[in-house]
Amino acid sequence: MTQPAKGKAMDVGADLTPEQIEEVLTRAPYHKWLGLKVIAVEDDGIELKATWREEWVVNIERGYTHGGILAALIDLGADWAMVRKLGRGVPTIDMRVDYHAAALPGDLIVKGKAVRTGNRVSTSEARIFDTQGKLLASGRGTYHTAPPKT
Amino acid sequence: MTQPAKGKAMDVGADLTPEQIEEVLTRAPYHKWLGLKVIAVEDDGIELKATWREEWVVNIERGYTHGGILAALIDLGADWAMVRKLGRGVPTIDMRVDYHAAALPGDLIVKGKAVRTGNRVSTSEARIFDTQGKLLASGRGTYHTAPPKT
Amino acid sequence: MTQPAKGKAMDVGADLTPEQIEEVLTRAPYHKWLGLKVIAVEDDGIELKATWREEWVVNIERGYTHGGILAALIDLGADWAMVRKLGRGVPTIDMRVDYHAAALPGDLIVKGKAVRTGNRVSTSEARIFDTQGKLLASGRGTYHTAPPKT
Amino acid sequence: MTQPAKGKAMDVGADLTPEQIEEVLTRAPYHKWLGLKVIAVEDDGIELKATWREEWVVNIERGYTHGGILAALIDLGADWAMVRKLGRGVPTIDMRVDYHAAALPGDLIVKGKAVRTGNRVSTSEARIFDTQGKLLASGRGTYHTAPPKT
Repeated sequence: MTQPAKGKAMDVGADLTPEQIEEVLTRAPYHKWLGLKVIAVEDDGIELKATWREEWVVNIERGYTHGGILAALIDLGADWAMVRKLGRGVPTIDMRVDYHAAALPGDLIVKGKAVRTGNRVSTSEARIFDTQGKLLASGRGTYHTAPPKT
Repeated sequence: MTQPAKGKAMDVGADLTPEQIEEVLTRAPYHKWLGLKVIAVEDDGIELKATWREEWVVNIERGYTHGGILAALIDLGADWAMVRKLGRGVPTIDMRVDYHAAALPGDLIVKGKAVRTGNRVSTSEARIFDTQGKLLASGRGTYHTAPPKT
Repeated sequence: MTQPAKGKAMDVGADLTPEQIEEVLTRAPYHKWLGLKVIAVEDDGIELKATWREEWVVNIERGYTHGGILAALIDLGADWAMVRKLGRGVPTIDMRVDYHAAALPGDLIVKGKAVRTGNRVSTSEARIFDTQGKLLASGRGTYHTAPPKT
Repeated sequence: MTQPAKGKAMDVGADLTPEQIEEVLTRAPYHKWLGLKVIAVEDDGIELKATWREEWVVNIERGYTHGGILAALIDLGADWAMVRKLGRGVPTIDMRVDYHAAALPGDLIVKGKAVRTGNRVSTSEARIFDTQGKLLASGRGTYHTAPPKT
């Protein structure tokens, strides 16, 4: 299948399983590169795991992960938090990321949650934790949620 | 050399050449993965080029680059805009990214510029263009610019 | 008393009552103009009420409150969410506001909550509701929380 | 006239004079309270002046203006930067404000400029200066610029 990961609805019913969402999500090469797993899905939220890789590192002495990786995960968590309602990822209009602590080598957990879902635009937020539960970053974004033109 | 790309000053004088900055910048594995080149440096600005790769893609039908790549480049342009003043990249406190147009396959140009450099925190902005000069994204960030503890 | 509402610690112990916080908060003329009341205080959160006035209106036909009033309340809720820990309001570095629904004439409720309190900078968030509990706006800010120089 | 200051197009041609824009702008009670004057208008930008008043103060010892006033002015400058293209103020989706220096008692100058005008949403930025030209705050916002439904 060559369905886009963003911008097109899945041809499925409303209650996607984590496995189905992961299948759509990881069609995107960048999501595959991030090693994304769908841990859990709720009506207005999602939990993802990203698999650490050496190319993420910005500081080779201390092994810190680059802020751009964390930004991608904030966007992903916030965006896909609405997948149960929308059946797809949606285009990002803008986003904000706050960095709280350096990310050491290791997998990352992202929890996304819808703040308010609208007909035209929606707001969603996400938090990133290490596998011990330490908060590393948080943020929010605005998303185009008007139905795609057919 | 195992100098970190972030958080430590270079042991050089103030007037770094683009080549010197690129050498420091690309010690970071993530920056290497982004294929970063330093095109130009000014007292309060920088121009970088990132080299397209297949793993950037989010939408395999249309080839769009993932917003997380653009976010990393906004952060990088805004952060390193202050390199002439600070001799190094600095920790990001928070940032905002606005997405203006889908990025098609191809290299990306980032222009960063300091908005206001302070003793403790600084604000800087960046814009991303395709190689034809089309504006794809813009944004700004807040950076820790207090002198590093020795 | 001519104590500033921001930038100086209260000369009181840690467990301020809502009345004590309201007394400090409303020394500021702008806070008085907003008709601020402190409804509740928790260790990492605060609930405020602002009293509607005609000068807030942007759209005289429909009575909508100006987004700048909502922005001030997001900043206030996020900032003073940390009052239990810090004994004072703190300088804002930057903030983001998301507008969800038009605010009709009427008092506004603001709920602020610390996201992560650090030694130098802290992140805090806030939500604004009308008196029926409808979410009107939300946002977050970065605050200087280094101890004030003496 | 009871035309709203936001959300409805002016019944005028494209080349509004500063006086015409000021007339529409100051129909809004909050804009009147801010003492707004239109200094200059360009195709993608605007310069406004706001008239200081005692109620703006947050810190009565030093006379600092509240960040919420600056936030309102960032929103206003960014929003009305597009008035030449749109003939009206437009609804704000979200915004970011960066605070650079304390605002002492005195009038404030706001310069707004469109970053990118789109069919559905647009991005615009603004900077606030004191009357000596010192940069006090800057920021940007996302605006609904789809044509209003008739």
